[in-house]
Amino acid sequence: VAAVRFIEKLTSRLESTPTFLCVGLDSRYDRVSEAIGTSGDIESTVFDFNRRVVENVADLAVAFKMNVAFYAGFGAPGLAALRRTNAFLRETFPAIPRIADCKRSEMGESVKMVIKEIFDDLGFDAVMVTPWFGRDTVEAYLEDPARGVAVYIHDSNPSAPEFQQLPIVHPSSGAQVPLFEYVAERIVQEWNSNGNIFLEAGLTYPQQLRRVREVAGEEMPLLVAGLGAQGGKAEDLIGLFGAGRRRLFVNSSRGILFPARAIRAKDRYFEEVRRAALETSQTLLELSLR
Amino acid sequence: VAAVRFIEKLTSRLESTPTFLCVGLDSRYDRVSEAIGTSGDIESTVFDFNRRVVENVADLAVAFKMNVAFYAGFGAPGLAALRRTNAFLRETFPAIPRIADCKRSEMGESVKMVIKEIFDDLGFDAVMVTPWFGRDTVEAYLEDPARGVAVYIHDSNPSAPEFQQLPIVHPSSGAQVPLFEYVAERIVQEWNSNGNIFLEAGLTYPQQLRRVREVAGEEMPLLVAGLGAQGGKAEDLIGLFGAGRRRLFVNSSRGILFPARAIRAKDRYFEEVRRAALETSQTLLELSLR
Repeated sequence: VAAVRFIEKLTSRLESTPTFLCVGLDSRYDRVSEAIGTSGDIESTVFDFNRRVVENVADLAVAFKMNVAFYAGFGAPGLAALRRTNAFLRETFPAIPRIADCKRSEMGESVKMVIKEIFDDLGFDAVMVTPWFGRDTVEAYLEDPARGVAVYIHDSNPSAPEFQQLPIVHPSSGAQVPLFEYVAERIVQEWNSNGNIFLEAGLTYPQQLRRVREVAGEEMPLLVAGLGAQGGKAEDLIGLFGAGRRRLFVNSSRGILFPARAIRAKDRYFEEVRRAALETSQTLLELSLR
Repeated sequence: VAAVRFIEKLTSRLESTPTFLCVGLDSRYDRVSEAIGTSGDIESTVFDFNRRVVENVADLAVAFKMNVAFYAGFGAPGLAALRRTNAFLRETFPAIPRIADCKRSEMGESVKMVIKEIFDDLGFDAVMVTPWFGRDTVEAYLEDPARGVAVYIHDSNPSAPEFQQLPIVHPSSGAQVPLFEYVAERIVQEWNSNGNIFLEAGLTYPQQLRRVREVAGEEMPLLVAGLGAQGGKAEDLIGLFGAGRRRLFVNSSRGILFPARAIRAKDRYFEEVRRAALETSQTLLELSLR
């Protein structure tokens, strides 16, 4: 039986679940134990928290994205919690993509090791990579379309423009374009030969996000970062949802996992988690229709 | 007692150990067990191999560099071997820098997690990052000068030129310069405010490597990748050794860990490892004097 192509899995989910919500399971042990106390060791505390978040928001989640650093920062028990979370997701909600926000950008022999680490051992079905090293970085992922790859195009952090917005001289046209646009163009035209790449861009730079959509075309799924805590405004998403208004999803991490109302009312913590996810989904759905 | 500044540790080592050799402990379990057999489980096989390599080449090593992917690819036991290797090095050879080749490029909260992972948990004293996300990526490392940071400027892989050599329009001068030169310039002039950054560049692009030295200045330590298996020619290092001919070191991984002569003569495997390290050191020393 051939495995499902990752991009088909992602687009099916985008079509069937018009919430546009990527739940960022950045479940730092220290913050989790502050929020709900511990249930024993690091591994079970973080896994139990994730399981309850997932059970409460799965129907609202286009995808789950985990920043691996928030688990690896707590050593082997942190990574064990991540592995168990992915195993639980794969078994219980196999239709939902599991994206590793890990900024691993290896090449050659070492990228095979990243595949073992991120896909085989930790259990993700998509990885996120920086474009800095060129096409070599994604080549090994392209061999198997069951693996998704997201490339960071224009990020949400304050210093993202330092290089990403530099004017470059386009090798073909000679025109000056910002580096991030050229990167997006290369990916769409040259890298994505097996159709399993999608793009990440930040809502904190709305003009640039708009250009990413223009260069990427209407079919390419966009993962948008930077909503909420980082200052991105949801209104800036209007018009960027792509083909069928179903080719964009927005990450929210802290706003879903640790909403202020949940922190205040610990006896209904996960109800408040669901409420936060529902409110964000409704906002996004309304914007997708404008 | 204040910790030793990383760059002083590195430059002291460069001064005292004119071998110019960075030993790349990319000790993949599968290749190690093929080369020397196993000594039980993954963790002890890889750790025992590393310990014996270290014991045989420590006096010749300016630094040890481990690509974390080659350990993480074998899950928790692989990472345990890496942790033990760093603990062994820190205890037995504390003067030798331990560099994490990991291409982690986080920002904000998540970079603090990388510090916990790479420095506190795995026991490195320097990390390597891509410049893609701008200065935010290195900011957290700058707070503590006991931590070193290497930035990938122009890499040794075939597609490195795709973005790294793009002509950009320099924001101040308006001149066209290749992106990697501008990145090096920014790092030297703006990022390195606490003096703990060094640069990585590939020997497979000798002209570009020369430009990195020119832009970085004579004092900046350069870590050079791509010798040997990747096709870089040692002769291209002539003139690039920097201040006092002591500001450059060259990584070699497979050529030291798995030399053909060692594979053929397993009863004196580690003697052959030492011989390979010694030959590379002598070549580099001769070139540093030309």
